[in-house]
Amino acid sequence: MIHPELGPPPALPQGALRVMALGGLGEIGRNMAVLEFAGRLLIIDCGVLFPEESQLGIDVILPDFAPIAERLDDVEALLLTHGHEDHIGAVPYLLRQRPDLPVLGSRLTLALLQAKVREHRLTLNSRTVAEGEQVSLGPFGVEFLAVNHSIPDALALAVSTPAGVVLHTGDFKMDQVPLDGRITDLNGFARLGDRGVDLLMVDSTNAEVPGFVPSEREIVPVLDSVFHRAQGRIIVASFASHVHRVQQVVDLAAQHGRKVAWVGRSMIRNMGVARDLGFLHIPDGTLVTSEQLADLPDERSVLVCTGSQGEPMAVLSRIANRDHQISVGPGDTVILASSLIPGNEQAVNRVINELTKLGANVVHRGNALVHVSGHASAGELRYLYNIVKPRHVMPVHGEWRHLRANAGLAQQVGIAADRILLADDGVTIDLVDGKAEISGFVPVGHIYVDGSSVGDVTETLLKDRRILGEEGFISIFCAVDLVRSEVVVGPEIHARGLGLDEATYEPVITAVRRAVEEALRDGASDTYALQQVIRRHVGRWVSNTHRRRPMIVPVVVEA
Amino acid sequence: MIHPELGPPPALPQGALRVMALGGLGEIGRNMAVLEFAGRLLIIDCGVLFPEESQLGIDVILPDFAPIAERLDDVEALLLTHGHEDHIGAVPYLLRQRPDLPVLGSRLTLALLQAKVREHRLTLNSRTVAEGEQVSLGPFGVEFLAVNHSIPDALALAVSTPAGVVLHTGDFKMDQVPLDGRITDLNGFARLGDRGVDLLMVDSTNAEVPGFVPSEREIVPVLDSVFHRAQGRIIVASFASHVHRVQQVVDLAAQHGRKVAWVGRSMIRNMGVARDLGFLHIPDGTLVTSEQLADLPDERSVLVCTGSQGEPMAVLSRIANRDHQISVGPGDTVILASSLIPGNEQAVNRVINELTKLGANVVHRGNALVHVSGHASAGELRYLYNIVKPRHVMPVHGEWRHLRANAGLAQQVGIAADRILLADDGVTIDLVDGKAEISGFVPVGHIYVDGSSVGDVTETLLKDRRILGEEGFISIFCAVDLVRSEVVVGPEIHARGLGLDEATYEPVITAVRRAVEEALRDGASDTYALQQVIRRHVGRWVSNTHRRRPMIVPVVVEA
Repeated sequence: MIHPELGPPPALPQGALRVMALGGLGEIGRNMAVLEFAGRLLIIDCGVLFPEESQLGIDVILPDFAPIAERLDDVEALLLTHGHEDHIGAVPYLLRQRPDLPVLGSRLTLALLQAKVREHRLTLNSRTVAEGEQVSLGPFGVEFLAVNHSIPDALALAVSTPAGVVLHTGDFKMDQVPLDGRITDLNGFARLGDRGVDLLMVDSTNAEVPGFVPSEREIVPVLDSVFHRAQGRIIVASFASHVHRVQQVVDLAAQHGRKVAWVGRSMIRNMGVARDLGFLHIPDGTLVTSEQLADLPDERSVLVCTGSQGEPMAVLSRIANRDHQISVGPGDTVILASSLIPGNEQAVNRVINELTKLGANVVHRGNALVHVSGHASAGELRYLYNIVKPRHVMPVHGEWRHLRANAGLAQQVGIAADRILLADDGVTIDLVDGKAEISGFVPVGHIYVDGSSVGDVTETLLKDRRILGEEGFISIFCAVDLVRSEVVVGPEIHARGLGLDEATYEPVITAVRRAVEEALRDGASDTYALQQVIRRHVGRWVSNTHRRRPMIVPVVVEA
Repeated sequence: MIHPELGPPPALPQGALRVMALGGLGEIGRNMAVLEFAGRLLIIDCGVLFPEESQLGIDVILPDFAPIAERLDDVEALLLTHGHEDHIGAVPYLLRQRPDLPVLGSRLTLALLQAKVREHRLTLNSRTVAEGEQVSLGPFGVEFLAVNHSIPDALALAVSTPAGVVLHTGDFKMDQVPLDGRITDLNGFARLGDRGVDLLMVDSTNAEVPGFVPSEREIVPVLDSVFHRAQGRIIVASFASHVHRVQQVVDLAAQHGRKVAWVGRSMIRNMGVARDLGFLHIPDGTLVTSEQLADLPDERSVLVCTGSQGEPMAVLSRIANRDHQISVGPGDTVILASSLIPGNEQAVNRVINELTKLGANVVHRGNALVHVSGHASAGELRYLYNIVKPRHVMPVHGEWRHLRANAGLAQQVGIAADRILLADDGVTIDLVDGKAEISGFVPVGHIYVDGSSVGDVTETLLKDRRILGEEGFISIFCAVDLVRSEVVVGPEIHARGLGLDEATYEPVITAVRRAVEEALRDGASDTYALQQVIRRHVGRWVSNTHRRRPMIVPVVVEA
């Protein structure tokens, strides 16, 4: 732990600014930061984190709203940097707690959020902003700056208060020739830097990666040669939000005389939104429905779908498992034109192998440059530091390895170690009289969403699930007559997840019955004590005879 | 599927040779191939596969011995190419079925196997062989050739029968300046090639990787600079079988005036074996026990331990979780000097992050050349093909993506497509009159080891575990009087893994009792029917009120 000794933060001094993350530090996902000044709060982003495979049954993980739950009326606004799930995915859950919360974001960001909010049957009190715009939100002055990322219309934010200026990069990189010509606003960063940035909150995702992210354009010749060689159908899987990647596929399809269809709900919806707002340009006659595409010869068709992360229910996985009307075989080409989110390696590998086995030629980031990252690498981050010349740096958006690597870059360009603030979720950083320091720690947890339950799944419950999944369970039921010291019904033994032969239960049933009756005769007077007797007996039996440690669930009732 | 239409293979024609894999095709692990000639069998390797995270509760996965189970007495011998788990790990399970099976392997391979076999309380009928040696085993003539791999003393095998010659590379690469000077015997391969190799079984692991594997020696300067910069303790995690990697660490430690200790059972055992056999050379006074090391200053110590794959019980994970007497902190250096086995990404990432958070400098293959692979890359494989000039090629040791990539390399160097045999586990390849062809398919499965059970865990059971792990279960017990149409005891409802509030059970208990009694009055006369009624009711309730789909376990008994 970096700050094992930290206690709750002191009351915020007058004229001071406090910054705290409720998620996004020590993990890539559920980004959410809270700024506080003069009793008023400003929130930056509110995203979800996707669970690890070992977090069984969890749909998504939310930031912990607890530290601000009692103060939601003090929140001036929620500012969104861009439309990725790890930045907007938890907004509906926050809106449930404060439905009228003003939400500010760019056109595309709000359009993508709108669809999500509607699914939750909520409405959005939104205000569209754009790069170059400045707004006043209570004591906070906010300026929005264009940044280049793997989704269009992304923004960085400069928040000014009497305590100082905080610049939050959002997710960004510095492609100098982006497809849409909208480059990261280094001039704006420079202007802010010259005036003085007190705290720079910086995307750390690629801080470990040396050099510079290649331009999105460098994918074109690679995809072009894949299109040239492809004889049959081409299937491109990517994120449903990666408008520029899809743009390149659409353009190439048109050049190669192929038609394009979106496949999958989120791809159809998002590309519709992007096209309506003018972020995606489709050459006339190129886009068809997947039904129309089915009537075309394979060599004239391109399918654009989701599933590049191996998500089991997404189109690509279903195609790979031959559980979709679209089938692939020898001669077909599948392109996974996207990153590989840590944690999805096995799922993606399975999909690649299944498609390969079906005979498809699978092109992916492992064998061709069909993806470039959306996050600045070490080289770009050094430029940023030298342009902004921040008084303090707070690496955000990363696991510990990324945060620390980013801190290392800041030190390389001359920022003093004590001005680089490595913090965990819940750690408060106070900017007082021009100096930012860690001031305290508010415990925050991981809020698990499972079906309709939000926050009811605890770490203990996850441990129970792990035991159930790995070891199964044995339940033992019996009804007893406490007065006559007799087992009246049972013991009934049932096991699941163990693969035991029921024929082997007989001896343990007899032993349990004997043990319970003995305990009754010895004066056991409550069912709890009898349950403990059963647990001990059955646990020993299954451990000795089968070398297993299942969950043991004894139930004893009075008949 | 490549061969959906394949049926059981025909009887093997006189004078023909049959090859079949019982594991290792379509996966990296549980390598095992069977050669058959004139009614006699020869087995090459017998390894385990490590489970994926989604295969809950599984310890290891074995090859399926079923196709030869009735013919174990026909087996002349088991030949082992080298001492890695995926080649020797399943030997004890095979020996249980035929304890006197002759096992041939190199000195180190047999020494590592010996320890394993002892743990299973078996004895080994072994025969040590070395490169250059030729042995006769029934109708099979076997010649052993030296190959270079990430474990010393690895062998390739040339098996001669009247039907033709099969050359099996084992796991290999072609480091031209290996630490031990023992290079892959290309001269031997050339001699065999000139005489004629009918079937070449080739390691496919790195067929997708372009170029050549760097020499093991190229790690030295990288490790050296890490040692130079390191101020505190150095901890090196690697495979307990990677003798050459450990040798380099030991040499550097001696040069930098540090002492070395092994930590962890398998590291202590294997390095002892390697040293006793002369494969590991320790400069005088360099090796100490971990107790002695604890008395030395941090800057004079190097710990060599296991856990480079993030295995939760291994030394490194326990250090990262501060659950080990050895602690790390700022100033300490941790080197993960090993590959990252697919499937372990998340676990390894967790360990890197935890160590980073503790303040350690973590050096791993992602940020420094501290590992080179043990398997030939595409460049090396092309050399092999051109030197051996095989009449037929069978890519082995790989997932589908690797097998197919290897097939592509064979085609590149001019081997006709119909002479490249892409096969699944269980597919038989017959070499008849100089021509090798796929002849049939014997269904083989994955044999799961879980505790003391071998083969009892089925795919259905794994699905049950998945449901239990992700969704939990609800058990409902009641005892009924079928004659009086009454519920006598219960319904008792218990749930685990759901996180439900027991206070919410009351309505469903009442509803179940009512439904059961109604069914009894309507003439339900057996407990099975009543269980179905309960399942339906409880399933609907938990789905409607909680949006969950747990396993539902109704138990109804006659009182």
